Amino acid sequence: MTHQLIENVFGKAFSNPILDARHDSAQFPVPSTNLAMTTDSYVVRPLFFPGGDIGSMAVYGTVNDLVMSGAHPLYLSCAFIIQEGMPMETLKRVVSSMRTAAEQCGVQIITGDTKVVERNEGDGLFINTSGIGVIESALKIAPQSVRPGDVVLLSGDIGRHGMAIMAVREGLQFDSVIESDSAPVHEPVLRLISAGIEIHCLRDLTRGGLAAALNEISESVKARISVEEQSIPVREDVHAACEILGMDALHVANEGRFIAFIPARDATSALQILQQHPVSVGSTVIGTVSETLPPMVTLKSAIGTSRILDMPSGEQLPRIC
Amino acid sequence: MTHQLIENVFGKAFSNPILDARHDSAQFPVPSTNLAMTTDSYVVRPLFFPGGDIGSMAVYGTVNDLVMSGAHPLYLSCAFIIQEGMPMETLKRVVSSMRTAAEQCGVQIITGDTKVVERNEGDGLFINTSGIGVIESALKIAPQSVRPGDVVLLSGDIGRHGMAIMAVREGLQFDSVIESDSAPVHEPVLRLISAGIEIHCLRDLTRGGLAAALNEISESVKARISVEEQSIPVREDVHAACEILGMDALHVANEGRFIAFIPARDATSALQILQQHPVSVGSTVIGTVSETLPPMVTLKSAIGTSRILDMPSGEQLPRIC
Repeated sequence: MTHQLIENVFGKAFSNPILDARHDSAQFPVPSTNLAMTTDSYVVRPLFFPGGDIGSMAVYGTVNDLVMSGAHPLYLSCAFIIQEGMPMETLKRVVSSMRTAAEQCGVQIITGDTKVVERNEGDGLFINTSGIGVIESALKIAPQSVRPGDVVLLSGDIGRHGMAIMAVREGLQFDSVIESDSAPVHEPVLRLISAGIEIHCLRDLTRGGLAAALNEISESVKARISVEEQSIPVREDVHAACEILGMDALHVANEGRFIAFIPARDATSALQILQQHPVSVGSTVIGTVSETLPPMVTLKSAIGTSRILDMPSGEQLPRIC
Repeated sequence: MTHQLIENVFGKAFSNPILDARHDSAQFPVPSTNLAMTTDSYVVRPLFFPGGDIGSMAVYGTVNDLVMSGAHPLYLSCAFIIQEGMPMETLKRVVSSMRTAAEQCGVQIITGDTKVVERNEGDGLFINTSGIGVIESALKIAPQSVRPGDVVLLSGDIGRHGMAIMAVREGLQFDSVIESDSAPVHEPVLRLISAGIEIHCLRDLTRGGLAAALNEISESVKARISVEEQSIPVREDVHAACEILGMDALHVANEGRFIAFIPARDATSALQILQQHPVSVGSTVIGTVSETLPPMVTLKSAIGTSRILDMPSGEQLPRIC
């Protein structure tokens, strides 16, 4: 019964000709033989939070990972692990949110799976989405393409997703509710590509935040990245929440923010394009890449001192994404 | 620390140029624009069982789902949800099994994800694999292609996977241990295709067993499928275990068995090809498709009586795959 109900819920919400064929695997054509593929499991708690929920996040997160390769996202798979006793209404809300998110991103959910496991103390839902997209541009958008002289663009203020989750969990109250930045970033990124901006690398700022993303790239390309602390937008309420919880906004997870590495000559045009889209209206240049060794990320403060920005150690926030 | 260790375990075991680029999504070319995609989460308990384990199963299961579309499996994603406190040695055994299985199937694991969740009473590991493959033949292998007059081939004896799991869980003892049939079936299926057998449909016999697969196809094509009970191979120990547990082997899950719908004229050649491969050496013709309405699956017993073979109601065995 449960299985049938679930099938109906998912099958109806996500209906499209490829999914509706209901075979062991989905069959479909792609417009190019250059592909990107990614996978992510979403285990965030609570399932619903200010600014988002596990369903839309599971779509946006996987779409964003595809876009970070410069791919045009096309198709998602969706696998649910549900604990017995999970209310059907909750599941329906999540599925409805996924459907809306998929429509917004122009992707189709073409294959899926459902497993039901024993009830335990958890609140009962994990979602895995894998995605594929096609890479239509000749750009090789990857850490290996970053060059000394590249500038680093950041697509907006940081720390909101992590602090939105923590504020709910810790019962923090502010004048206004901190809303997650959870959002798809395919539109501004694909516009950069069509405009001919020579993007070298893109990176989603999820677990580990801006600090982890910068350190990973620095390590990959063996180059130093120097960032200006005062150029990094952090909202006042996020800053306050971080202070109360003893966290650093640079380490906090985001779900709708990315950094872009591009040649300095393209910085102005790129910023203009990004700032025209609501999801990246707060884009700004935050740093540069230099040949100086050893590879590391340095952060220059407002008063001119410079310090090493380390990789976050350990997982700051469990069940954040 | 844990995260780093996991990254090292996974990164080292699955290393290949596409994965090693370690970007938000994997970038790779495919040799055709006709693709198949599938996803499955594996939640089987125990993690290790006679004849297999969750790791190899997570590879074989997804490979088999791709093959059921006639696709040549190429790439897998792999997402782990791990409970805190899971022994690293267990994880390493699972990962090592996945690597061996991937090599055996000629697929590469090109992108992955790891989430760690709170400890609870469970034994701590879920694996999702999604896969993509290329469809190089002009055949449209899908339920919609089944025709009246088609014969139904079954690739071997049924019920072993489910009974292997249940025997462990229930502590049943037999003269010999029942081993799961968990195995990849890409080789015999791809040989059928290269040999020019006009395959109409293939279906993996997993949850719900042979009965569910036959009913799903019957429902999809609105045709009656008539099956001879005595032609369906069930091993003596599996039969005994089913009797003890009050189960029907026709409803029990398999992990290395499939049915094929093909025109009657191709049956002999197809059987010859299948019987040459160890994984499908026990292949046999079990039934036929007829136009008779309403769509249903009928089972003819040894003594000549006929009964309706229903869809299994509910989940017979939780955490079986």
